[in-house]
Amino acid sequence: MLGKYFDNVRKNVPLVHNITNYVTVNDVANVLLACGGSPIMSDEPEDVEDITTICGGLNINIGTLNKSSIEGMYRAGRRANELGHVVLLDPVGAGASALRTNTAVGLMDKIRFNVIRGNISEIKTLALGSGTTKGVDADVADAVTEESLDSAVKFAKDLASKTGSVIAITGAIDLVADADRCYVIRNGRPEMGRITGTGCQLSGMMTAFLVANPDKPLDAAAAAVCTMGLAGEIGWSRMQEGDGNSTYRNRIIDAIFNMDGETLDKGAKYEVR
Amino acid sequence: MLGKYFDNVRKNVPLVHNITNYVTVNDVANVLLACGGSPIMSDEPEDVEDITTICGGLNINIGTLNKSSIEGMYRAGRRANELGHVVLLDPVGAGASALRTNTAVGLMDKIRFNVIRGNISEIKTLALGSGTTKGVDADVADAVTEESLDSAVKFAKDLASKTGSVIAITGAIDLVADADRCYVIRNGRPEMGRITGTGCQLSGMMTAFLVANPDKPLDAAAAAVCTMGLAGEIGWSRMQEGDGNSTYRNRIIDAIFNMDGETLDKGAKYEVR
Amino acid sequence: MLGKYFDNVRKNVPLVHNITNYVTVNDVANVLLACGGSPIMSDEPEDVEDITTICGGLNINIGTLNKSSIEGMYRAGRRANELGHVVLLDPVGAGASALRTNTAVGLMDKIRFNVIRGNISEIKTLALGSGTTKGVDADVADAVTEESLDSAVKFAKDLASKTGSVIAITGAIDLVADADRCYVIRNGRPEMGRITGTGCQLSGMMTAFLVANPDKPLDAAAAAVCTMGLAGEIGWSRMQEGDGNSTYRNRIIDAIFNMDGETLDKGAKYEVR
Repeated sequence: MLGKYFDNVRKNVPLVHNITNYVTVNDVANVLLACGGSPIMSDEPEDVEDITTICGGLNINIGTLNKSSIEGMYRAGRRANELGHVVLLDPVGAGASALRTNTAVGLMDKIRFNVIRGNISEIKTLALGSGTTKGVDADVADAVTEESLDSAVKFAKDLASKTGSVIAITGAIDLVADADRCYVIRNGRPEMGRITGTGCQLSGMMTAFLVANPDKPLDAAAAAVCTMGLAGEIGWSRMQEGDGNSTYRNRIIDAIFNMDGETLDKGAKYEVR
Repeated sequence: MLGKYFDNVRKNVPLVHNITNYVTVNDVANVLLACGGSPIMSDEPEDVEDITTICGGLNINIGTLNKSSIEGMYRAGRRANELGHVVLLDPVGAGASALRTNTAVGLMDKIRFNVIRGNISEIKTLALGSGTTKGVDADVADAVTEESLDSAVKFAKDLASKTGSVIAITGAIDLVADADRCYVIRNGRPEMGRITGTGCQLSGMMTAFLVANPDKPLDAAAAAVCTMGLAGEIGWSRMQEGDGNSTYRNRIIDAIFNMDGETLDKGAKYEVR
Repeated sequence: MLGKYFDNVRKNVPLVHNITNYVTVNDVANVLLACGGSPIMSDEPEDVEDITTICGGLNINIGTLNKSSIEGMYRAGRRANELGHVVLLDPVGAGASALRTNTAVGLMDKIRFNVIRGNISEIKTLALGSGTTKGVDADVADAVTEESLDSAVKFAKDLASKTGSVIAITGAIDLVADADRCYVIRNGRPEMGRITGTGCQLSGMMTAFLVANPDKPLDAAAAAVCTMGLAGEIGWSRMQEGDGNSTYRNRIIDAIFNMDGETLDKGAKYEVR
């Protein structure tokens, strides 16, 4: 049962340092507040070490990276590693440009990540050094389906084993794996892909879940994925005639604001392989 | 009938690279998703060429320009031109500062734009090398009115002829012109000016419309303007007691999410001069 | 009665230059539009002097400062001082990092601020050169309570006297002081702390209030605080089953959009000490 991992977030109010893109940053902040965490944003290299020191976790998202923020990612990541903080990588657009691929790979080389969360195209790029990312969205050819599930689970576990990170691959079916176990999660709605930043929001929230559940990174990460997916379902059920993706964004964050462990336990749809 | 240009966006799912300001960027992304496109944002000079290469169009908006992003605009624009991609310029605040005016003029000198979209004060600044921009909003003295319409249409056509770009001037009455024809559009609501970024949103969406309708830049641009204005009307019709500009923003994007070519054909209000 | 200060904003449509963080900037722009002002954002050092020149006020918020924007803050601040414009400082996260503390203190040394607005931890940091800021939120140990009110009022007046700025300390109880008088304000809802950026929004709006009421900086600042708090109350009263912090954000801005001086006069809860 994953509900307790959610309740621990509300109990512990984890402070999360986000180096994230300017597209979805406001939603990331509001999702962190909705789930019971506390967000702070800073990417200036001379600021990030102090900021990450007072936090419990660090969420690195390369969505609108620039030379200065890349330096900030390295500095913050090293400091967070020294302090034993939770560190998450969201390799937005890895495979779409050399700079993004190289930055993600370079960060993985120098920083120890507790979790890496991306879509299948991004994660494949990191694993294989190549990919077919279509912009910031996953390529259809890569999609995790019921047919490709066995091999995708093996891929996720192998990458987790190789990197020592929990690997979270989100899409129609979500996978969250360490070397031994893989959560296969079937929450969520396809319409979530019509909102910008549900992945970025999940990465911020997942960091808070890991901070609040330090001994259970795999289960905490899976709980965050189920929370986001279930919020997508609850939010969709509240949509009215004429509502669209902008209102849907609000309703998803609202659903997280109103969620608790019990609701999550009832609504989470997963198996462990 | 402009509806088919909208339907082509949904059919083709154009990927649009946006170098845009951090004020309204989230709304630009959600509007692109709402109309059926796919957004990606990148302004780092070392990233933009790769990113624009995988896209179909490039939307350059100088709203919160800085030295690094200006270099990104030039690099991305040159690459997009080499590849024959659609490129749009939104000269936010041209006339309000020397840097903005010079950047817009400089970009027009080096990059071939398929469309330039701005308010009348910004466009006059580009045309005449002067202007009376009041911040990022048009000066009342410049406004296109029924009285000044004939001369404004001529101005738009002349500038289109001189630049080789479709010229889109938005305000109470919208004009979209090439050298020969000018759409005069009367969709929209005055309350749209009380939301930040409806112009930026339109620029992002217009880029997608041109990518999806490569042989019809003028008509595609006009269809985008009608879509935005009609969404403003539909969104306003759904406003309830106590709602204000923040909810209106959501309802406009929602209306685009729910729009199709048929709705646009019924609601578009324009003449061609 | 504070309502007239609000009505003056609608009458004068003050143009406000914001150098603010990319987390909450969209909400700051929409709040400024909601209250009747007009926002423009610019942080590039080569752009800010021109931009601030055409505005009536300057809102400096250090929430996601970087080396370039810090230079922009100094340049814009100096120019605004030369022109006699209203200048506000929002020292987000002062006390949380050396860079933030030093930037805020350095700005106070070189720029004359009409108002400084922050939470109690940030303001204590500025006053005492130390603080216990918990990220960007106030530390509970610092909170202004009924018990600590007398000493907090004295602290605010003393700091106002020392700096020559109106001091606005916002929290469960808000204080707005000059050397002689202190507004003690009890509007607002605790749930406002679950939305990112209500403080940033207030700073933007407060700048507009001071521009529109040039002879009454203290009362105008207090009116802005009451407006934000009352909007929080009105917005909360419109919340429905299932709504959360994302919808609450919209409803607060909507409430400001629909507010007028009369509503403010009826709803403002304050005393002057």
